[in-house]
Amino acid sequence: MKNRIYIKDLKDHIGKEVVVAGWVDVRRDQGKMAFFDMRDMTGKVQAVALPNHTDVIEKSKEVRLEWVLKITGLVNKRPERNIKAGVLNGEIELEILNIEILSEALPLPFDMSLDGYNLELTTELDNRAIVLRQPKVQAVFKVQETVIDSFREFMKKNMFFEFQAPAITPATAEGGAEVFQVDYFGKKAYLTQSPQLYKQIVMSAFERCFSVNKVFRAEPSSTTRHLTEIVSLDAEMGFIDSWMDVRDMAEETVRYILKQVEAKNSEHLKTLNATLPVMIDKTPTLSLREIQQKIFEKYGRDVRGEKDTNPEDERQICEIIKEETGSDFVFVYGYPTRKKPFYIYPNPEEPEYNEGMDLLCRGVEWLSGGRRINDYKQLTEHVELWKMDPSKVKMFLEAFKYGVPPEGGFAFGAERITMQLLGLKNIREASMFPRDMNRIDEKLNSDGY
Amino acid sequence: MKNRIYIKDLKDHIGKEVVVAGWVDVRRDQGKMAFFDMRDMTGKVQAVALPNHTDVIEKSKEVRLEWVLKITGLVNKRPERNIKAGVLNGEIELEILNIEILSEALPLPFDMSLDGYNLELTTELDNRAIVLRQPKVQAVFKVQETVIDSFREFMKKNMFFEFQAPAITPATAEGGAEVFQVDYFGKKAYLTQSPQLYKQIVMSAFERCFSVNKVFRAEPSSTTRHLTEIVSLDAEMGFIDSWMDVRDMAEETVRYILKQVEAKNSEHLKTLNATLPVMIDKTPTLSLREIQQKIFEKYGRDVRGEKDTNPEDERQICEIIKEETGSDFVFVYGYPTRKKPFYIYPNPEEPEYNEGMDLLCRGVEWLSGGRRINDYKQLTEHVELWKMDPSKVKMFLEAFKYGVPPEGGFAFGAERITMQLLGLKNIREASMFPRDMNRIDEKLNSDGY
Repeated sequence: MKNRIYIKDLKDHIGKEVVVAGWVDVRRDQGKMAFFDMRDMTGKVQAVALPNHTDVIEKSKEVRLEWVLKITGLVNKRPERNIKAGVLNGEIELEILNIEILSEALPLPFDMSLDGYNLELTTELDNRAIVLRQPKVQAVFKVQETVIDSFREFMKKNMFFEFQAPAITPATAEGGAEVFQVDYFGKKAYLTQSPQLYKQIVMSAFERCFSVNKVFRAEPSSTTRHLTEIVSLDAEMGFIDSWMDVRDMAEETVRYILKQVEAKNSEHLKTLNATLPVMIDKTPTLSLREIQQKIFEKYGRDVRGEKDTNPEDERQICEIIKEETGSDFVFVYGYPTRKKPFYIYPNPEEPEYNEGMDLLCRGVEWLSGGRRINDYKQLTEHVELWKMDPSKVKMFLEAFKYGVPPEGGFAFGAERITMQLLGLKNIREASMFPRDMNRIDEKLNSDGY
Repeated sequence: MKNRIYIKDLKDHIGKEVVVAGWVDVRRDQGKMAFFDMRDMTGKVQAVALPNHTDVIEKSKEVRLEWVLKITGLVNKRPERNIKAGVLNGEIELEILNIEILSEALPLPFDMSLDGYNLELTTELDNRAIVLRQPKVQAVFKVQETVIDSFREFMKKNMFFEFQAPAITPATAEGGAEVFQVDYFGKKAYLTQSPQLYKQIVMSAFERCFSVNKVFRAEPSSTTRHLTEIVSLDAEMGFIDSWMDVRDMAEETVRYILKQVEAKNSEHLKTLNATLPVMIDKTPTLSLREIQQKIFEKYGRDVRGEKDTNPEDERQICEIIKEETGSDFVFVYGYPTRKKPFYIYPNPEEPEYNEGMDLLCRGVEWLSGGRRINDYKQLTEHVELWKMDPSKVKMFLEAFKYGVPPEGGFAFGAERITMQLLGLKNIREASMFPRDMNRIDEKLNSDGY
């Protein structure tokens, strides 16, 4: 829009006539005067219709919340007594000279004001389109944008190549119960659960690669932590000396994300009343058996010998580590090889445990990864041991026939990390258009549509 | 890997002992000496096993193409007569002191050398994993990475917010014949054909937004221009004065992408023997009727009154504009309103033509966009006129009830623009893992799998 000034920049135009455009955020009639708060993507400003501008007063009486206006106005300093310190445009107001109505709005179905807004999640999702205008909701997705951007930035700084992982896959290498089936020209195809095998292929050619792509999980669970469509942030790197190189890269990636969120989203964190977790210089790293022992010693709960962690283990080990070191984060590694996917590298000195790892924070898993098998022979042996159909991983195995360096990688979900960073109660709050077994935009009705 | 030096940096280590790691790219035995070209993600260097290092010579005899090696070596200046000017590391070679074999490789199924590589596309796709190591293939995806990155960069410079558009959709707003159906917990869902309605919703809250997301087309066509899974680059902007603001933003986006590709990928363009198209200061912009008239005048072919362009029109108008102005690009606008989607804004002075536009280049469409209807009443009228089921666009219409500024946007496919930039013959060359009606990684067999 020609000559439009963004609201955040108005303070540079005191005493001047300007054009602003935006939505009516708040509206107050005061006898002979009328006040609006105008909102654009950069902020808010108080606009005032003064009694001497009779046509402006007239028009301002029509105007309702969320109407879209183009206002020509004069940027005035506020009288000393009306200054709101520490608030954007707290020291100025806009004297309205002309109002052009760009778009009208129906009455809002509920209170959208910063303080008045208080919807149940179901109602919020039923009204997603309009609710996206709410600052608390916008704050979540601004933080998520930073999470994804800073992942990408850190990857590029470290010479990772970004590729586009496919969504449609021919076969389900790992299991298959929780996979969505697509009618593909009368044949069967599936939605990808993970770009794992593709990123290993790309790594075998580009050394380091990453992807930001959708993955899909057909888990018939309707918990606060389940979505069917997720943004997966995936990295894979060749020429590692050991799985600890992967751990270090994962740690520094998360550290970079935290720093960027802190730097770019401090206002949003305040809006959401969120505190970022503490990452100390060197995140504690313990084997599964070590954390089981610690839990036993601290809480007397004996999970020693269990094949994996359960949610209570994850909560308790995070508590213990926080108390011992101040770190909100802890790496856990060394899971039973046969309980995990075929491609994870077994510890050569103790092959029944693998070199897979998880990063936990505040009681939940944030990220998974580890070293992978890079030797073709070992990989084909695992395919056989895991009783997999080699034809379903043919292209993957092909890559490993022709020389692949020692390698590993990691992955995490954008929604989950957003949820955990911000302390949200439900992962649906961290997905702009969440899909679950009962909802795709709207609640699914029982006979489908 | 500890102390590893990237091959591109070797020239800074002349006279020093270094560790490099990579693949054997070329291999030559010369009696008592052996030469390898070693390749890592940054480049190539000639490594030489000299007769006085007998254990090195011994080991180098075992080594085959694509084996992965960690080499300790001495960076030596080449004798004057052996210097290859203008080539990375043309003035140095690596005297091998020690070879550690990180991974062996089976014999390659075909010639992978820069000059020898010459596969049919079908064979190339059947061997995608290994072929990704080929420099000509890598060059395509390096350029594609720049295209997507620079789209994102330009959007961010212009205050567009990035959101994650969903892949799974509840209903098919527009038509439905060419949409993939997903079995969604026993109900029906679909793969998105476009984030169009979602980006308009997000724009209604964030003013400016963009997305880089997969879209899916179930067109049963197996041409050189059809894929079933595409990376769509989508932008949407509010507070426009007219559709020409959208045209300008689209033009500057493409200009930025061209500049970035030129700056970052000159080597890759050379490898692919590609010449970027010419974008002049102000890309010519003509209405559909104007280009039909020009085609008639120039070639005597009468397509005046046709409702859309066909491939021959697109070729001919590009030729005419190139001849007249030197521009490889031309915008075409003003299509018959009723032949296009319901949301496109009709020209108020001539409502039977819309304010939709296409950007053509070198005879094909690169990008589509235009102004959209932002008025709720007009939008619902169109929904009715287009005989659509309003319940299928409920969330979309909801956004427009509550005040939406004049707006528009555009979209283009990453694969198509990569193909056109590089002059590739088949769009499958511009998709790392192309999906079409006959292939998902491998050729689909007739009874599905």
